[in-house]
Amino acid sequence: MQIEVLPNAGSPLIPYLEDKLVIVIDVLRATSTMVTALANGCQAIIPVLTSEEAMERRLTLPGSLLGGERQGVKIEGFDLGNSPFDYVPEKVGGKRVIMTTTNGTRAIRDAVAAPMIWMASFLNMQSIVTAVLRQFEDNAKYQGIVVYCAGTEDRFDLPDTLCAGMLIDALGPNVAINDLGEAARMLYHSAENHIMDKIRESVHGKKLISLGFEQDLIYCSTPNILPIIPVFEEGEIVWSTEG
Amino acid sequence: MQIEVLPNAGSPLIPYLEDKLVIVIDVLRATSTMVTALANGCQAIIPVLTSEEAMERRLTLPGSLLGGERQGVKIEGFDLGNSPFDYVPEKVGGKRVIMTTTNGTRAIRDAVAAPMIWMASFLNMQSIVTAVLRQFEDNAKYQGIVVYCAGTEDRFDLPDTLCAGMLIDALGPNVAINDLGEAARMLYHSAENHIMDKIRESVHGKKLISLGFEQDLIYCSTPNILPIIPVFEEGEIVWSTEG
Repeated sequence: MQIEVLPNAGSPLIPYLEDKLVIVIDVLRATSTMVTALANGCQAIIPVLTSEEAMERRLTLPGSLLGGERQGVKIEGFDLGNSPFDYVPEKVGGKRVIMTTTNGTRAIRDAVAAPMIWMASFLNMQSIVTAVLRQFEDNAKYQGIVVYCAGTEDRFDLPDTLCAGMLIDALGPNVAINDLGEAARMLYHSAENHIMDKIRESVHGKKLISLGFEQDLIYCSTPNILPIIPVFEEGEIVWSTEG
Repeated sequence: MQIEVLPNAGSPLIPYLEDKLVIVIDVLRATSTMVTALANGCQAIIPVLTSEEAMERRLTLPGSLLGGERQGVKIEGFDLGNSPFDYVPEKVGGKRVIMTTTNGTRAIRDAVAAPMIWMASFLNMQSIVTAVLRQFEDNAKYQGIVVYCAGTEDRFDLPDTLCAGMLIDALGPNVAINDLGEAARMLYHSAENHIMDKIRESVHGKKLISLGFEQDLIYCSTPNILPIIPVFEEGEIVWSTEG
């Protein structure tokens, strides 16, 4: 199994994305929040790049909610921020959420040329691993995997890379990986027993703590609690039936 | 001491490069080769971006040599490739070398706004560490350090990152680092006793071995054998008197 890890939204994309399975990771917090929203009954998440685009899309989707952040904080006039704790069943159950975040939704939109895009986080890692192994069992539909870390403002982000390392580690030794994939696996091995501390000490982690989101960090570092694979289909992120 | 590590040539540069000490690392092989060339009596290395630029510069510098690679191989018509073993005293002693490489010389040219640029590699790490500590002893001239890994074709490169990790580790615990700096330090700790193996297994390492350059890898992974700090001054890389 060929795996390329890319460090951040805006990375030059490898050629031939069109036959790759893309797995987007934005631990703090976009993909963690998407997994949570779907687990809480959200019907679909529509990733968009700007708040203007979000507001325009809402005109065509009556009853939908606006979610997202800039600089970690809820966008003015939006219904929801980017905290997973905003996406409770009472708010998102049965609803569509149009969402824009600094890194995560950009990464998803970067990857639209791929035939399949899944969203991963620590929360749903076990489901992602099982689904990847099933996809590559016999006649794989895809020529490999691109693990697309969202990063932080066009930079390498340790929480996303640790999560990528957990995925690669769980896929076993029969993987061909690029240098960032090897680094992610080594970092995961070295931090395996104190992932939450490493996330707290990361630049993005410290920023979220300073904004009062420490509970988000604790929650987003928790592995394998939600058996859900969010998949990007026809412009929307929905609960996958394929995984 | 503030340290930002950047993963590859072409990275978006952090603001305020103009008050930073920049340390460029291209283990395989540009900065390793530059250190070696200066140790072998080369008078100066002039980094340029293209082979055309190199040939034009030679017209103004009679007696100078052309050095560099594309795809790891010596450029046609050039005197020297990018192997440190090309840069022996009989060839480079007392001469200027006009040099272009895929990643390393690009990184140097990216950083020209900085007041000071040093070239680091495993070969000269101890001298770099000593010089950095001296610079930041009391009234530091610089507001921090940017460790600019050259990377491989706009991608994260494990050999360069391990070398950055060795530097950060040696600078001690009183450093404020970005996520890639923390990752570099963790990777160095985890690979400290088998650096050469990790370099062999890297994408760039494997490529150089396939091209017949295994000896280069062994040499470039050797720490602290050359007490030299190459510095970029007025368009040329020379042996620093400042270090």
